Amino acid sequence: MTLVKELQQKIDLKTKPIGALGTLEKLALLIGQVQNTLTPTLIKPNIVVFAGDHGITKEGVSAYPQEVTYQMVMNFLNGGAAINVFSNQHNINLKIVDAGVNFDFEPSEKLTNAKIAYGTKNFLKEKAMSKTQVVQCFDKAAKIVNEIFETKSNVIGFGEMGIGNTSSATMLMSYLCKLPIEKCIGRGTGLNDIQLENKISILKQAQAFHGKIVDPKEVLQTFGGFEIAQICGAMLAAFEKKMLILIDGFIASSAFLVAYQINPKIISNAIFCHLSDEYGHQNLLNYLNADPLLKLNMRLGEGTGCAIAYPIMESAVAFLNNMASFESAAVTNKQ
Amino acid sequence: MTLVKELQQKIDLKTKPIGALGTLEKLALLIGQVQNTLTPTLIKPNIVVFAGDHGITKEGVSAYPQEVTYQMVMNFLNGGAAINVFSNQHNINLKIVDAGVNFDFEPSEKLTNAKIAYGTKNFLKEKAMSKTQVVQCFDKAAKIVNEIFETKSNVIGFGEMGIGNTSSATMLMSYLCKLPIEKCIGRGTGLNDIQLENKISILKQAQAFHGKIVDPKEVLQTFGGFEIAQICGAMLAAFEKKMLILIDGFIASSAFLVAYQINPKIISNAIFCHLSDEYGHQNLLNYLNADPLLKLNMRLGEGTGCAIAYPIMESAVAFLNNMASFESAAVTNKQ
Repeated sequence: MTLVKELQQKIDLKTKPIGALGTLEKLALLIGQVQNTLTPTLIKPNIVVFAGDHGITKEGVSAYPQEVTYQMVMNFLNGGAAINVFSNQHNINLKIVDAGVNFDFEPSEKLTNAKIAYGTKNFLKEKAMSKTQVVQCFDKAAKIVNEIFETKSNVIGFGEMGIGNTSSATMLMSYLCKLPIEKCIGRGTGLNDIQLENKISILKQAQAFHGKIVDPKEVLQTFGGFEIAQICGAMLAAFEKKMLILIDGFIASSAFLVAYQINPKIISNAIFCHLSDEYGHQNLLNYLNADPLLKLNMRLGEGTGCAIAYPIMESAVAFLNNMASFESAAVTNKQ
Repeated sequence: MTLVKELQQKIDLKTKPIGALGTLEKLALLIGQVQNTLTPTLIKPNIVVFAGDHGITKEGVSAYPQEVTYQMVMNFLNGGAAINVFSNQHNINLKIVDAGVNFDFEPSEKLTNAKIAYGTKNFLKEKAMSKTQVVQCFDKAAKIVNEIFETKSNVIGFGEMGIGNTSSATMLMSYLCKLPIEKCIGRGTGLNDIQLENKISILKQAQAFHGKIVDPKEVLQTFGGFEIAQICGAMLAAFEKKMLILIDGFIASSAFLVAYQINPKIISNAIFCHLSDEYGHQNLLNYLNADPLLKLNMRLGEGTGCAIAYPIMESAVAFLNNMASFESAAVTNKQ
């Protein structure tokens, strides 16, 4: 019998009607397959938050000023952000990475320095990154993931902070899903109607400026950002290590999209944690044929969707390992 | 400033865009209001699982035989059921109550005896319970809740076990929501098409037999079951104690429906934990104007939806109490 059939049989013989744990059963099946075992475990969960700044913020695409990126990194380091609260709640190890923030941080044990530059270039006028910078992003991210893997961790989620990064994510999605900007955009941190119109207009100009690009790495290079490229590289590295990969909201999903087009097999290890309230996210998940665990109208990023969804994964593993079977509990099965 | 405005302001000044935590923000607002404080806490969460048998099972409305009710109670007592696993995971205290199972259990500290009878009567031919039995159900349930309240617990969820109880729940819903049987029914533990047709036919016959009833307590008396009546009474008692009330799936929601028609104010304290895969549940939630936390295609009962959703409530309280504000974190707010 194949592992997947053995897993399914183990699930079906638990003391519950067939399929009655719904998505938890699918999760148990996925996690068992990734770990190649009938008794999976989640070990030392990590969330890595990559932060970077974006040249495109010069065009007024965000409701917040660029300085909020570094200020929020300080907030992460001081433990005051949402992701700190939720990671603490679920005993998830949190790592903060400077992927390219426009600020000089004091050296700190809490902050991993993977800075590529002080923000990307403005992609309305030139490519956001150089080819070399994309390679640097992937290398630095792989190193971070490999270090986490060395601690025996087998489950990793990725979050981001970067004022302006919904614009990058929109461009990645529009190019790689071949969908018009309007289907790939949203209000980010809270644009009003006029600001949203401006964002659409800017991004359409950028599309006209750069023209056709099909290679996923070149799309990533063109529109950035450093935090998105590092998440993409980190996901690819986590897949190589056979880790479970937790996918957060719109930005993280756009990074996953690039990773997926580079290596489609990665989707076997992906757990889509939540549907963001950012408008484009539903279309992106549709493209990936992904049904996320949570639909809580959140749109904060930082990896908060991964953290909030994490106990559901623990539940999936727990029922698979700890529930009685009809036989062991002496319960009569369906006639 | 009113408490609700103060709570909203506290939420809005956290380091995140307005509304970016979506449903968690609504939850924080609800919990703060129920506890009448800006710093709510969840203390000693409890899930109480009421079990009872149903005379209507004689008509072949369930995919499982009646003996599964007592066998599953034994499974709860031995720690092997899904609700045991999920309650353990989230440090939720679990209490099992014999509300009227057709079995003589050995006395056990783990099992609360609130037995009314050895199952309800067959409501196809007579009322499921006597008027006195409804009163007994409410009294015994209130005693159980009050004892839990005395331990300082301020949050309580309710689960059930009772082969045949989706038929009772369907009847309660059809009468109290004034909807046809077809909108209030589902496959329960897994009926096939022919069995489902039979269930619909039996329940329509019961409706024809009993005719019009409008009083919610009389509807409850007519269709049972003992576990549903005790959940209903327990919810009303929990509301009197200003506790948060966690609403599980289809059966628990039908008990809530009766409680709600007896005392509509109870809805202020209710947290709808999940959308069950049992077909009628969505219509019942629509009637109650309720948007549940989870949509995970679960349909197991036992209070499993409450347990799986519980960490989301903890997250709501945690962000309200522990996140930094824009001011405390020195982060620039929206322009």
